[in-house]
Amino acid sequence: MLPRMTPIPPVGLGLWKVPNAAAAGLVAEAVRLGYRHLDSACDYGNEAEVGDGIGAALAAGHCRREDLWVTSKLWNTYHAAGHVRPALDRSLADLKLDYLDLYLIHFPIAQAFVPFETRYPPGWFFDPADSAGGMRFAPVPLAETWRAMEDLHAAGRVKHIGVCNVGTAQLRDLLAGCRVRPAVLQIELHPYLTQEKLVRFCRAEGIAVTAFSPLGAPSYVPLGMATPDESVMTEPAVAAAATRLGKTPAQVLLRWGVQRGTAVVPKTSRAERLAENLAVLDFTLTEAEMAAISALDRGRRFNDPGVFAEAAFNTFCPIYE
Amino acid sequence: MLPRMTPIPPVGLGLWKVPNAAAAGLVAEAVRLGYRHLDSACDYGNEAEVGDGIGAALAAGHCRREDLWVTSKLWNTYHAAGHVRPALDRSLADLKLDYLDLYLIHFPIAQAFVPFETRYPPGWFFDPADSAGGMRFAPVPLAETWRAMEDLHAAGRVKHIGVCNVGTAQLRDLLAGCRVRPAVLQIELHPYLTQEKLVRFCRAEGIAVTAFSPLGAPSYVPLGMATPDESVMTEPAVAAAATRLGKTPAQVLLRWGVQRGTAVVPKTSRAERLAENLAVLDFTLTEAEMAAISALDRGRRFNDPGVFAEAAFNTFCPIYE
Repeated sequence: MLPRMTPIPPVGLGLWKVPNAAAAGLVAEAVRLGYRHLDSACDYGNEAEVGDGIGAALAAGHCRREDLWVTSKLWNTYHAAGHVRPALDRSLADLKLDYLDLYLIHFPIAQAFVPFETRYPPGWFFDPADSAGGMRFAPVPLAETWRAMEDLHAAGRVKHIGVCNVGTAQLRDLLAGCRVRPAVLQIELHPYLTQEKLVRFCRAEGIAVTAFSPLGAPSYVPLGMATPDESVMTEPAVAAAATRLGKTPAQVLLRWGVQRGTAVVPKTSRAERLAENLAVLDFTLTEAEMAAISALDRGRRFNDPGVFAEAAFNTFCPIYE
Repeated sequence: MLPRMTPIPPVGLGLWKVPNAAAAGLVAEAVRLGYRHLDSACDYGNEAEVGDGIGAALAAGHCRREDLWVTSKLWNTYHAAGHVRPALDRSLADLKLDYLDLYLIHFPIAQAFVPFETRYPPGWFFDPADSAGGMRFAPVPLAETWRAMEDLHAAGRVKHIGVCNVGTAQLRDLLAGCRVRPAVLQIELHPYLTQEKLVRFCRAEGIAVTAFSPLGAPSYVPLGMATPDESVMTEPAVAAAATRLGKTPAQVLLRWGVQRGTAVVPKTSRAERLAENLAVLDFTLTEAEMAAISALDRGRRFNDPGVFAEAAFNTFCPIYE
């Protein structure tokens, strides 16, 4: 018996790289406009401000807590069993919530523990005492972390648990040994990285899929992880559908993601974009348009620790090969 | 402290698809010619005959048992803890050996158990009682299988243990939780699938790498899993090095594998090819030749259960995506 798919709202607000000073206002405005899904994480470094925004939205009566779907993510430094609950508690405290709708393991990478007092969030930790530089890892199997996530679920602190950035082999392994199945997989998905097999595998297993970076390169160009000419927005297949429908290329990309059955969590720091990104549920791409956009797949992954950790942290940390 | 790399001989004889009637003679001849590394597996269905060949070679005095490196592999249907030891015992009995040099988990796929009496080897099991067809899986995490492999190692029944067909994420997870580290990873490697990051990861972790299908497509063309025009043998970069050195394209490909630090296990059923494949240790490719051959990489995987299991067994079984 497969579990029913989770009722995760199809469009969420991605909060990665939202500046702290803007986060509260952006979140409150998003909820006012109708967003009911917020994609947060310890690592984004703005959960306190996101929590202020949630509080403001609830106080303003835009919706009730139970109408919101709030996701957060366990950072790599808290994978050991004893660190999972404190990490959740810290996220809940920052968000000013008493439960999460979804808690995800952010990466299948266990880094050495960093106490909250030393640095929070710790990021892809660089140990200043280590003259060779680089990230430090911890010998924690994913199954240990998952058991701790299951305990959070059993305690009612999180309604659903899931994982990010894993593939079919690790998912199959997790499914084989779990007491609580992962409800959601969050992965990078856009027309340059369609991951058809992985999405299909999740569908077969009753695991909902959330697409991060559903618009592709934009978030990565300023980080040097993508070049401006890698924009999927300007692809003729996307432009043609946008013209036919009177929509923006971004809306076509988000609709493509929603229509293939994934949730999407586009990020914006611009209030005027909020409404645009949300308005993708009242039109339909044709099968031919869906196929033409899917055919843009080129296996281009922008968010790959195996690439950026080496450049930024002098650490070879592949997970996708 | 990383373990020392295993002393696995760089060229082995791959025994996949060697016909039963030919296996004993081929193995005995190979050992006579100087092969000291035999790559066997339950799934190849010829271990009894391989064992006959080993016995003949030892009886003829071509070498001693301790001069040989014999690898076998645990099949997918025996992943549950209680089935691992009997599976090894069956391979040892067939091979007429009292220990293996290396026992590998053949795939990170746990299939439903099939008793020896029902079918041996069971293959990618098709259950005739299941009208929908397809493979049947078992909920066994890789860590459970690995613990049973560690027990075999502790009991001295296998000198080394390892895995096949896993990537960096699963390897990192295995390393995080193991008592005995995997000594060897066996994966598909040839110039069309160089897997540089995975090979590099293994080098950094002190895990030896064995390349299966080091000649690329030939084994897969008769199975419909590759087309004749996918032969890396005819690539100009390979041909140019072969001409310069007065070697065959196959020898250049095997040398490329050995020179990048992997062991290679080419298969042949033709006795005259045995010597050719073994004679790759007395010449050297230039750095430019190595680079030109490595540049042929196109991520082309011929042996992918995510493709062939669907065509052959009506089962969607991706592991690499």
